[in-house]
Amino acid sequence: MSAPTSPEPVQLVPGNTLLTKTPEEGRQLAVKMARLIIKATQPDAAVRERLRPIYAEDPAMLIAIGQTVAQEFATIAAANNYWR
Amino acid sequence: MSAPTSPEPVQLVPGNTLLTKTPEEGRQLAVKMARLIIKATQPDAAVRERLRPIYAEDPAMLIAIGQTVAQEFATIAAANNYWR
Amino acid sequence: MSAPTSPEPVQLVPGNTLLTKTPEEGRQLAVKMARLIIKATQPDAAVRERLRPIYAEDPAMLIAIGQTVAQEFATIAAANNYWR
Amino acid sequence: MSAPTSPEPVQLVPGNTLLTKTPEEGRQLAVKMARLIIKATQPDAAVRERLRPIYAEDPAMLIAIGQTVAQEFATIAAANNYWR
Amino acid sequence: MSAPTSPEPVQLVPGNTLLTKTPEEGRQLAVKMARLIIKATQPDAAVRERLRPIYAEDPAMLIAIGQTVAQEFATIAAANNYWR
Amino acid sequence: MSAPTSPEPVQLVPGNTLLTKTPEEGRQLAVKMARLIIKATQPDAAVRERLRPIYAEDPAMLIAIGQTVAQEFATIAAANNYWR
Repeated sequence: MSAPTSPEPVQLVPGNTLLTKTPEEGRQLAVKMARLIIKATQPDAAVRERLRPIYAEDPAMLIAIGQTVAQEFATIAAANNYWR
Repeated sequence: MSAPTSPEPVQLVPGNTLLTKTPEEGRQLAVKMARLIIKATQPDAAVRERLRPIYAEDPAMLIAIGQTVAQEFATIAAANNYWR
Repeated sequence: MSAPTSPEPVQLVPGNTLLTKTPEEGRQLAVKMARLIIKATQPDAAVRERLRPIYAEDPAMLIAIGQTVAQEFATIAAANNYWR
Repeated sequence: MSAPTSPEPVQLVPGNTLLTKTPEEGRQLAVKMARLIIKATQPDAAVRERLRPIYAEDPAMLIAIGQTVAQEFATIAAANNYWR
Repeated sequence: MSAPTSPEPVQLVPGNTLLTKTPEEGRQLAVKMARLIIKATQPDAAVRERLRPIYAEDPAMLIAIGQTVAQEFATIAAANNYWR
Repeated sequence: MSAPTSPEPVQLVPGNTLLTKTPEEGRQLAVKMARLIIKATQPDAAVRERLRPIYAEDPAMLIAIGQTVAQEFATIAAANNYWR
């Protein structure tokens, strides 16, 4: 029932680089990297789908997701020397 | 009912730059970037509107929002070499 | 009733600078900046007043406030090259 | 009853410096700075005394206190160039 | 019953280095290092196995795991000079 | 009953240095420093012993412990220039 449906290892860093052309792309990478950790921890797509409406309508969890993305983005921004 | 009302991708970094003229503008950018992650995660404006009074009257969530902004601002401030 | 009483935009960085003369003043700025995010998110002074005794007597929230201030202070301290 | 008993402003950075002779003293400063934010937010010593057994016997709060100290210490350690 | 089944000390940093060839390997190291702290704190494999379905189906805990990995990865990425 | 059993001040930084020979030793130091803050906040060994099975079987607390160690380790790793 809750058996993993994607047993192949999840790629955790899309493109295998932290370098992006723009801050916008860096932010998108931060969002993706945050999601991929969730995916690696809960590989069952059906479970993740069931959890989605729970966190998407819970303000505390939405705020926590924002904190995760902020942390990932800090690293990506430093890697890109802040796109200065 | 909870169907997304803005399916077009959300712009995550307004102006596509972390550079601002002043600390005040940098702080405003931090607030906006934090909100845009919420928007991208919960694209339904009606749901976000319904959640607003919940977090705005919950001291623990207000504090958590403050933590998110502080994290975003740390990155923006470093990008701007602290407006020294 | 819960209508915002201060609709004018909140100034988020007092003095519009992160630079302070001393660590003590830097710490005070961190506290103010943390509070101003709360104020911007919940502009109704009456609501904030009602919430105050809740978080001020809740140890978990007091600890969370401390974490927010620590994060803001980290940025301010770096901006000031740690007042070395 | 819950009236503040110490209305004078709390000194937030003991000694008004982040510089310490040793890591041990830096760690002690981190603990003190974390506590002083609690004191400034809840100036009533009697309330703080009442809250103490609550957080001191709650593992989640003890862990959260550890996170606060870790954050303060990160700043102090950087200020001291890690006492290298 | 809850007696530790692996009393030998857990190795906390696989390979005893933070340096990796690629961001992807750095991310995998972050995941492993986060898990090894859990293992060191709860050495009983049977208990960890029992806890797994709890956090893997709890969105708040999945988000918190993401925050932990983000923190570990920030350190690893800095150690590798961001694989620039 | 809950009277502190070790009233002597707790040493917060074992060896009074952040410098270690290897990442593994740095990680062990991070774990120790995190624990010593708990010990300083709750000096009663009997209470700490009673709390241990609570957090060791609670996945949310285990995750939070991981976050604390990650924060401490970030500082120690920087102090050691990442053992490059």
